[in-house]
Amino acid sequence: MVYILQHFGVGIAAITGVMAARGKRVDLFGVVVLALVTAIGGGTIRDCTLGRLPVFWVKDPNYVFTAVATAVLTFYLARTRQFPHTALLIADAFALAFFTIVGLKTALSCSVSPGIAVAMGVVTGVAGGILRDLLLGEIPLVFRPEIYLYATAAFAGAVLFVASAPYLSDDPLDTALSIGTILALRLAGIRWRISLPVFEDKAPAQD
Amino acid sequence: MVYILQHFGVGIAAITGVMAARGKRVDLFGVVVLALVTAIGGGTIRDCTLGRLPVFWVKDPNYVFTAVATAVLTFYLARTRQFPHTALLIADAFALAFFTIVGLKTALSCSVSPGIAVAMGVVTGVAGGILRDLLLGEIPLVFRPEIYLYATAAFAGAVLFVASAPYLSDDPLDTALSIGTILALRLAGIRWRISLPVFEDKAPAQD
Amino acid sequence: MVYILQHFGVGIAAITGVMAARGKRVDLFGVVVLALVTAIGGGTIRDCTLGRLPVFWVKDPNYVFTAVATAVLTFYLARTRQFPHTALLIADAFALAFFTIVGLKTALSCSVSPGIAVAMGVVTGVAGGILRDLLLGEIPLVFRPEIYLYATAAFAGAVLFVASAPYLSDDPLDTALSIGTILALRLAGIRWRISLPVFEDKAPAQD
Repeated sequence: MVYILQHFGVGIAAITGVMAARGKRVDLFGVVVLALVTAIGGGTIRDCTLGRLPVFWVKDPNYVFTAVATAVLTFYLARTRQFPHTALLIADAFALAFFTIVGLKTALSCSVSPGIAVAMGVVTGVAGGILRDLLLGEIPLVFRPEIYLYATAAFAGAVLFVASAPYLSDDPLDTALSIGTILALRLAGIRWRISLPVFEDKAPAQD
Repeated sequence: MVYILQHFGVGIAAITGVMAARGKRVDLFGVVVLALVTAIGGGTIRDCTLGRLPVFWVKDPNYVFTAVATAVLTFYLARTRQFPHTALLIADAFALAFFTIVGLKTALSCSVSPGIAVAMGVVTGVAGGILRDLLLGEIPLVFRPEIYLYATAAFAGAVLFVASAPYLSDDPLDTALSIGTILALRLAGIRWRISLPVFEDKAPAQD
Repeated sequence: MVYILQHFGVGIAAITGVMAARGKRVDLFGVVVLALVTAIGGGTIRDCTLGRLPVFWVKDPNYVFTAVATAVLTFYLARTRQFPHTALLIADAFALAFFTIVGLKTALSCSVSPGIAVAMGVVTGVAGGILRDLLLGEIPLVFRPEIYLYATAAFAGAVLFVASAPYLSDDPLDTALSIGTILALRLAGIRWRISLPVFEDKAPAQD
């Protein structure tokens, strides 16, 4: 069940990787790399920094196959069909929530401190999208106010998980609660256009 | 022999790293970093994700010295001399072919699945150039149709290698055949301007 | 003492990470990531390539907390206050010198060759800033002549350290001398506007 959801998440991330290439004159190979980086980039950074090597997709190549197959399919379908934008936003919110909590639990299984586990959860959830935007020469969308609550939702859900773990003894209820929180915050952020404050530097530099 | 060819490949990749800095107001340090990243970036990603640590250039610093020396030499020579563009294209095609098959064999020596070995071959062949373009703020050239067959040639040669390995028992013939295939596809792609299809998204987003 | 200086360096790097976001419409999350990447990015690349895993900030999360706290504080203070530009330049020169020598010693403790130790020192000193500029879609400032001596100063100090180590038996004097050299070269570079030569490619490509 968790395994199927993981592949669902990888597929959704791969689609957003492909869609980011709109209007950029990127070829089929570029689209496949963008899909792969979006889908497995966050987990790769998590595994490399934790020292869980080889990384997860070397151990289980099915993640690579899911991402590549989704990318190729999306490449051809996008030529003739409209993509359901709203459904994709909701699916992506679910993938964010799911990846964040899976990443967090993976880090905890390496017996890191709770703060690092939260950081690894957020990295697993958002770093793939950051790498995708980097490859397209853009400031990461997740750094922008127009994304609404995204990394913030992942962070809040991850904090809730580690904070409630002592009381709920790491059971499925804790997982469901945290995933639900991320999903709710993400969708509420979109619905009511809630953003983090933007960096402003009112004063000119002295000297 | 293989060792000399590897340093030849590193040198060629270093030259392409330097040449990418044309008209970008990059200083000598920037040029050296671009050369290094192009030459050893792909193998570094391969080694980190496979867990072959420390990475190859820490174990054998000669790769770093070759890349740095080539970069400094190119930096000064490019001020007064024309670079033989066609010779460089052919040398780069050879470096692509050679790096791809070396990367593939390195991955196989870590007993990964054939699909991952192919992916690692392509990463070793093309990821250095992707990192180079990233550092220059550009969408990677290898994602563009104007590169003609590049990653595709590497992929085809890598697939041929793993597909024929059971029959040819990993002998020099298999290596020569795969390198020849990559070289031939790459040069044919340039000669007849063969490109992968470009991502087009004809339909506007619903919602 | 060294530990306090390391946190001071992390804080300074975090401030430069935040300040790089000026006028880029980056939100609080983006600013925190930029600060983290600038502060701990170089050491992360060093640890991953050396195979010192998990990376230093997973073992000691205080580095992450220092960088995040500094980023949030800077985010709010920059709205109402001018930042002391000259003081920041000097503090950054000190952070560069300190990180370079710490990175160099860390590499030597993994028994790598002197050349690789120098490279790892420079990576620890400058790679965080390169990643920061990458995330903002810019060619790294450290590749530009207008930075004056920066990576060059780090390189010279690192070479001095490994060259004098046999005579000074790795004592505090050697460390102080190398840090002083980097600091002096960096500040002299700014004061007298000394730059590395820029890549120029006078001749058009043949073909």
